[in-house]
Amino acid sequence: MHPRDVLLQDKLGEECGIFGIFDRDGLAVQEITYYGLYALQHRGQESAGIAVADGQTIRHHKARGLVPEVFDEETLDALQGGKIAIGHVRYPTYGDTGLYNAQPLVIKYKKGFLALAHNGNLVNAEVLRNELEEAGAVFQTSVDSEVIANLIARQIDEGLEKAIQKTMSKLKGSYALLLMTEDKLIAVRDPYGMRPLALGRLGHSYVVASESCAFDAVDAEFIRDIKPGEVIIISQDGLKSIQMPVPLKSGLCVFEFIYFARADSTIDGISVYGARKEAGKILAVEHPVDADLVIGVPDSGTTAALGYAEGSGIPFGEGLIKNRYVGRTFIRPSQVMREQGVRIKLNALRKIIKGKRIVMIDDSIVRGTTSKKIVEMLRLAGAREVHIRISSPPVRFPCYFGIDTPTKEHLIGAKYGVEEICRIIGADSLGYLSIDGLLKTVEGSSCDLCLGCFTGEYPIEAEC
Amino acid sequence: MHPRDVLLQDKLGEECGIFGIFDRDGLAVQEITYYGLYALQHRGQESAGIAVADGQTIRHHKARGLVPEVFDEETLDALQGGKIAIGHVRYPTYGDTGLYNAQPLVIKYKKGFLALAHNGNLVNAEVLRNELEEAGAVFQTSVDSEVIANLIARQIDEGLEKAIQKTMSKLKGSYALLLMTEDKLIAVRDPYGMRPLALGRLGHSYVVASESCAFDAVDAEFIRDIKPGEVIIISQDGLKSIQMPVPLKSGLCVFEFIYFARADSTIDGISVYGARKEAGKILAVEHPVDADLVIGVPDSGTTAALGYAEGSGIPFGEGLIKNRYVGRTFIRPSQVMREQGVRIKLNALRKIIKGKRIVMIDDSIVRGTTSKKIVEMLRLAGAREVHIRISSPPVRFPCYFGIDTPTKEHLIGAKYGVEEICRIIGADSLGYLSIDGLLKTVEGSSCDLCLGCFTGEYPIEAEC
Amino acid sequence: MHPRDVLLQDKLGEECGIFGIFDRDGLAVQEITYYGLYALQHRGQESAGIAVADGQTIRHHKARGLVPEVFDEETLDALQGGKIAIGHVRYPTYGDTGLYNAQPLVIKYKKGFLALAHNGNLVNAEVLRNELEEAGAVFQTSVDSEVIANLIARQIDEGLEKAIQKTMSKLKGSYALLLMTEDKLIAVRDPYGMRPLALGRLGHSYVVASESCAFDAVDAEFIRDIKPGEVIIISQDGLKSIQMPVPLKSGLCVFEFIYFARADSTIDGISVYGARKEAGKILAVEHPVDADLVIGVPDSGTTAALGYAEGSGIPFGEGLIKNRYVGRTFIRPSQVMREQGVRIKLNALRKIIKGKRIVMIDDSIVRGTTSKKIVEMLRLAGAREVHIRISSPPVRFPCYFGIDTPTKEHLIGAKYGVEEICRIIGADSLGYLSIDGLLKTVEGSSCDLCLGCFTGEYPIEAEC
Amino acid sequence: MHPRDVLLQDKLGEECGIFGIFDRDGLAVQEITYYGLYALQHRGQESAGIAVADGQTIRHHKARGLVPEVFDEETLDALQGGKIAIGHVRYPTYGDTGLYNAQPLVIKYKKGFLALAHNGNLVNAEVLRNELEEAGAVFQTSVDSEVIANLIARQIDEGLEKAIQKTMSKLKGSYALLLMTEDKLIAVRDPYGMRPLALGRLGHSYVVASESCAFDAVDAEFIRDIKPGEVIIISQDGLKSIQMPVPLKSGLCVFEFIYFARADSTIDGISVYGARKEAGKILAVEHPVDADLVIGVPDSGTTAALGYAEGSGIPFGEGLIKNRYVGRTFIRPSQVMREQGVRIKLNALRKIIKGKRIVMIDDSIVRGTTSKKIVEMLRLAGAREVHIRISSPPVRFPCYFGIDTPTKEHLIGAKYGVEEICRIIGADSLGYLSIDGLLKTVEGSSCDLCLGCFTGEYPIEAEC
Repeated sequence: MHPRDVLLQDKLGEECGIFGIFDRDGLAVQEITYYGLYALQHRGQESAGIAVADGQTIRHHKARGLVPEVFDEETLDALQGGKIAIGHVRYPTYGDTGLYNAQPLVIKYKKGFLALAHNGNLVNAEVLRNELEEAGAVFQTSVDSEVIANLIARQIDEGLEKAIQKTMSKLKGSYALLLMTEDKLIAVRDPYGMRPLALGRLGHSYVVASESCAFDAVDAEFIRDIKPGEVIIISQDGLKSIQMPVPLKSGLCVFEFIYFARADSTIDGISVYGARKEAGKILAVEHPVDADLVIGVPDSGTTAALGYAEGSGIPFGEGLIKNRYVGRTFIRPSQVMREQGVRIKLNALRKIIKGKRIVMIDDSIVRGTTSKKIVEMLRLAGAREVHIRISSPPVRFPCYFGIDTPTKEHLIGAKYGVEEICRIIGADSLGYLSIDGLLKTVEGSSCDLCLGCFTGEYPIEAEC
Repeated sequence: MHPRDVLLQDKLGEECGIFGIFDRDGLAVQEITYYGLYALQHRGQESAGIAVADGQTIRHHKARGLVPEVFDEETLDALQGGKIAIGHVRYPTYGDTGLYNAQPLVIKYKKGFLALAHNGNLVNAEVLRNELEEAGAVFQTSVDSEVIANLIARQIDEGLEKAIQKTMSKLKGSYALLLMTEDKLIAVRDPYGMRPLALGRLGHSYVVASESCAFDAVDAEFIRDIKPGEVIIISQDGLKSIQMPVPLKSGLCVFEFIYFARADSTIDGISVYGARKEAGKILAVEHPVDADLVIGVPDSGTTAALGYAEGSGIPFGEGLIKNRYVGRTFIRPSQVMREQGVRIKLNALRKIIKGKRIVMIDDSIVRGTTSKKIVEMLRLAGAREVHIRISSPPVRFPCYFGIDTPTKEHLIGAKYGVEEICRIIGADSLGYLSIDGLLKTVEGSSCDLCLGCFTGEYPIEAEC
Repeated sequence: MHPRDVLLQDKLGEECGIFGIFDRDGLAVQEITYYGLYALQHRGQESAGIAVADGQTIRHHKARGLVPEVFDEETLDALQGGKIAIGHVRYPTYGDTGLYNAQPLVIKYKKGFLALAHNGNLVNAEVLRNELEEAGAVFQTSVDSEVIANLIARQIDEGLEKAIQKTMSKLKGSYALLLMTEDKLIAVRDPYGMRPLALGRLGHSYVVASESCAFDAVDAEFIRDIKPGEVIIISQDGLKSIQMPVPLKSGLCVFEFIYFARADSTIDGISVYGARKEAGKILAVEHPVDADLVIGVPDSGTTAALGYAEGSGIPFGEGLIKNRYVGRTFIRPSQVMREQGVRIKLNALRKIIKGKRIVMIDDSIVRGTTSKKIVEMLRLAGAREVHIRISSPPVRFPCYFGIDTPTKEHLIGAKYGVEEICRIIGADSLGYLSIDGLLKTVEGSSCDLCLGCFTGEYPIEAEC
Repeated sequence: MHPRDVLLQDKLGEECGIFGIFDRDGLAVQEITYYGLYALQHRGQESAGIAVADGQTIRHHKARGLVPEVFDEETLDALQGGKIAIGHVRYPTYGDTGLYNAQPLVIKYKKGFLALAHNGNLVNAEVLRNELEEAGAVFQTSVDSEVIANLIARQIDEGLEKAIQKTMSKLKGSYALLLMTEDKLIAVRDPYGMRPLALGRLGHSYVVASESCAFDAVDAEFIRDIKPGEVIIISQDGLKSIQMPVPLKSGLCVFEFIYFARADSTIDGISVYGARKEAGKILAVEHPVDADLVIGVPDSGTTAALGYAEGSGIPFGEGLIKNRYVGRTFIRPSQVMREQGVRIKLNALRKIIKGKRIVMIDDSIVRGTTSKKIVEMLRLAGAREVHIRISSPPVRFPCYFGIDTPTKEHLIGAKYGVEEICRIIGADSLGYLSIDGLLKTVEGSSCDLCLGCFTGEYPIEAEC
């Protein structure tokens, strides 16, 4: 197991975050990308990279680690002088921790240089790789970007725009994608809009990012979400949008609202914070309970807990304190200390827990191991009752579109019913938000939602 | 300026955290100390160190960086086999960033080895250093531990206990101190009790720590606070307590409750969380305002904000979102981005701020620069009014006992009245908690409080 | 300029060294490759890499730095369990110091995995790249290995052997090449034999290396040189040799004997040490001088100096002492110290120089800057006369086959005649070995020699 | 065992090298000290450090590693602005590899700052430590410098000069010592002159160094050796010399000439190169043999081999080739490869060894393990006979003055007679230089020599 993860929350894992800028104001594009990625750090902690284009060529730097670990003044200075930049943060996936999967991927092909940064997962990547290999291609990484780069290179004769369109027609799966040539920045969102992607403005310059919180971090202004199936090409001539054909129903990953995105982001017209708070309110209606205190599992359960408190009238309190330094590289605890694992990260506030009937709100249950430990911790702190409310439906199916879900045998919602789960984790009661309830929280979104991990029904056929 | 600090909050700075263990169960003392220090990481991020004693000698490792940066499996393994351990995390003080100030300090003297870990500040350190130098001593660091080590070494003839007592009679200032010989662990708290220090039990083993949250992290049980002027000597024979003479009035630093300590710690009988929440409630009474939403400046302002909400009946909300990765080593932003500094760390939630009259709770104002930027950010996010409430009185005087206060010219409370401060930071109104209000929040503490930074009256004469 | 080079000798630069092993004795192939590369470290100090195949897949590790810097126990352990390994050390070429040019290059293609390690330079690399790009290939590095990998992948349908042969028919230039699949090790030497490559045996296992000194380092036995145009395929079934068509005249780089190879290597039947000593002897005949002492510029000039002493009857002495630690990463000296540059590396032995007429032997003059400084140093040490003898002809032409030659304007032999050079470097006389003399030193070689840098006549047309 | 040493030669170990400069020309003292230390790197590879004084205070940097590893542009820049500097390189002694023994030691005492750099070993260090501890001193390292610093601090009342003299009267053992205050540089050589120390001039500035080769490296001019018992004080007022009482007979370590010093240094009037060559000549007379070729074990045996060749008339040749990169940090070879250890470092030149009767010259035999392996290697390379000649007498006794000798049971000369040693290492004959012969090589030295390791008679009583 990856050391950094030993104490991470028992959560689904995001794949990546991307950021890009096309400068028209003489800005230091590498520095702005650095801060943009930093605001997206929650989307990936495995590796980080920035590529810059200066009209002639593309330089880049990427390595394992967090954004402030990968870049220092020296490495950023080596990227000075560019007019366009794209950056990428990568989520740690088990098994492929080598450097070579860091992005952006920079290639040289027939028409010059191309840099790619991809968030998502192609379900037909293997098929496409095989086809490309049949046609003589060689691969040096296992990232989808390399497949996409090869497809573009092989269809470039009618120009880049055409090549991107042809490539998109072959790709099956989720992708929010940034492409950079020596003098162009291109942003692409898959026809289902499975991964978010937004467009912003910083002075006269354009920025694109996985989430709007990255715009705030660099003082840019949100313009609009990039639409499912939209290709935006930014060049010295300005911005051009091409709308590719889209399916009847799009499928933005609903977990962006539940857990992945930062609360201060707005995605496809929906405030992440708003959706989370609303989820808590609806949960209070769907699963009321007589209790003394509502607490959230920090950081992600807090907003829904506030909503539950508001909906139920039960007071909200901070019952669990999180070590602010969790998440850094960490020694693997020995067996004895591992038992202690959750305590190192979280601590119950005896003072306010003691003698109370507690409603504990979390955003999801994946394996159930962490929930079990927190329930124990609350009881040890003197909780009279512990009622768990989850601000999303049970995760019962794997994701094929880039989200790191455990295998079914580790997915507690796939194996057990709600009552059994309640017993396993030792709670007095357990209630999940219904799918209808969840949908209400994102009402008005400009995008339909993918609910595959709850329902097993995916916008695209999964098996390829 | 220290790069790690560029984006840190505009706060007073803590000096250090200490942790110790005397094993009687065959525990891995170096690992438990590692996790204990990790729980105290908020007290110091500059350097970390652990020393272990195995009956014969003392080995140690210390370096700049956070606990998980300084120690890895290799360095911890090199500390295996000990029966006693002490550890230290150090706050970054400007000017002395060299390695040599890292603690524990390990010395060899007449009676063998001695390791020291100190939290606090001696106000007569310079005097004592000069006296020792007059008597021929040489110094290799600028830490008080070295002064203390020299004093003990020079008074050791009647034994260590006596030497410690004689040494204490010479020390003026604050000190929570851990001493370790080849076979003893000694915990000392200064006669005013200015820095906290607690005793715990883990199986049959003893632990000591700056804050009780470190006990929870290693699954130890809190026994009691070490008393002002108390010396606790733990050896194979068990635990022995010596009570040194104490002044009429003790003086625990009240900022432990306001900001330094972790909310889940209990210090001298007072829950830190409880004190902070109560401060918010009293603030609501002392400085009521007609508003729509109470928000806290995360992380430290949140608890008081909940108290204010409860006290005022105005709903609480999360109006500011903090980047979870702030605090890591960071590039120095260029001028343009520095303006953006607070935004990189904090972001306003437009969705819930817009159109509202906001009460923003923070625990203190030091320089005022951050407050000003947050007010601007809230107004940009659409706040109709911004009322600031501070859950402590104005910081108007320097601290001589180990807290890092800026010089008077940078201390906004020392230069301006409340109205002027309100104008400078651009708020619609500003209210500070009164000293009486503050004292109410810690009512029942087993220790009197030092309020020197608010009143200029210190338990000990400051100038020496 | 690369810091490591600031004080390096004013020499032509080698491109790379390669090593491979096919194990049939249960050896730790990664460790043997490590020591093999270490013995070849003189051929490249920029980066090092090892790839191992275990029948199923290929793992590898490569990074910038010397062999002992790139690999430690952890990185070598991660390569355990292989049956075949190939390794590469790379010479620092200016301009492309990125990680991505480190070798071995490992690719995934139609038939599985392929690792490549290349020493040499394709003169038609650009042409081949363009052709491949036209056919849709994308490139991620600027190394020739990537071109070769693509060519093989596109011609694989009739099997690997055929693909290698077809690929060789397209390659123009120098290449000693190791290829590794999941279960095969293949060694290829270009039809001109421009770069050396030898085959050895270690127990029942096979090894291949750029130079025979690597066999000695791992206690392997030299079998024979791989022939120009020969392809050797080693698999579980044993060793198979395919001889490709070769030109009438081969062209092994003569600088291997003059400077590149280690003195204890034997290449194509010629002892490097023997050739160097012979060069000194012939030089004594071609350019006799009345003098008191023969000295060599260490390390490379020493052997020829011994030969000159033997040939001339003038005693040999160590007149110049070299700092044993030169070559490590080094700060760039400030202007003042840069003048001092050569002194930091070399020092004249006043004791034996003073009052003497010195014959100073060096193996080559490239820019002439170092020679000038050494002459000054010898005069300061009291030399009455300084006669320079060079154990190779004047370097007057660039190399297109992988040797790092400066541009013509920095190549002193390209701009000036011998007399002028003598005047520029301040010597009392200067004599170069003749081309005929040089050829005598390698008489009996199983390979013809490339003398392009002296004559401008190359075995292959250079311009492509 | 220290990884760096695994493949080091089987030699006695030096303790340290020191360098100092007092600037009167506006030089960058930290940079000159860097290059000075670099020239002394052969005297110590464990750690390096530089301290600079600027009239007000002393700054320093020290760490484990070679000079170019410890210092880069950033660390050197942090030492800018000084007028005086001292530096130190330390030899790796087993058991104390912690950072804290790196030098210079910088202390603060009654009169301000003091930096110390020491080469040598006090035989009464333990006694002095105990006395100081009795008087209340505390120690943080195990280096003698800390003892010296404490002694000076306790006797400072009559001024630094007096304190140094009083301190010297208490020190027993070897010391070449540099002291630096805020505005003075002081060089001290022990009354026996056991360790070398020389004075030089660079423009109007003064330099001091363990060996004169460091002066050449920074283009300074040798003035003279510092005399046994001499104290040189350099201040803005110029240079002042104090001569302390000295014994009838001094005792410079003769191993400086045999092995430690660089050949291009001149120590106490004797050229190291000259002494080594002479040793070879005398050896040829003392132990003649009928043979075909004289070879030296590189690097240190080469000069004596040239002398032997000259003395005997047998031709000299390079029969052993050394890997130029040996000495860098290195993985510990697994058992199989360890057998191969010497081969990794050295290789026999079959071409010139084969069929010949070889005289192999080495400067000393310590454990004998390396000699045995080289003899085997030469026989494998086809040597008909292998005659070993050692250019110093048998090392039979430990050194108490700072040289790292193995315990008697590992010291082959302490356990066996010459004939037995010859048999153990498998040579055809073995001859050591006689003590008389050795003394002839340093005839005319301004210092008497310590021959303790050969005779067991030491200038000072060893046991304290």
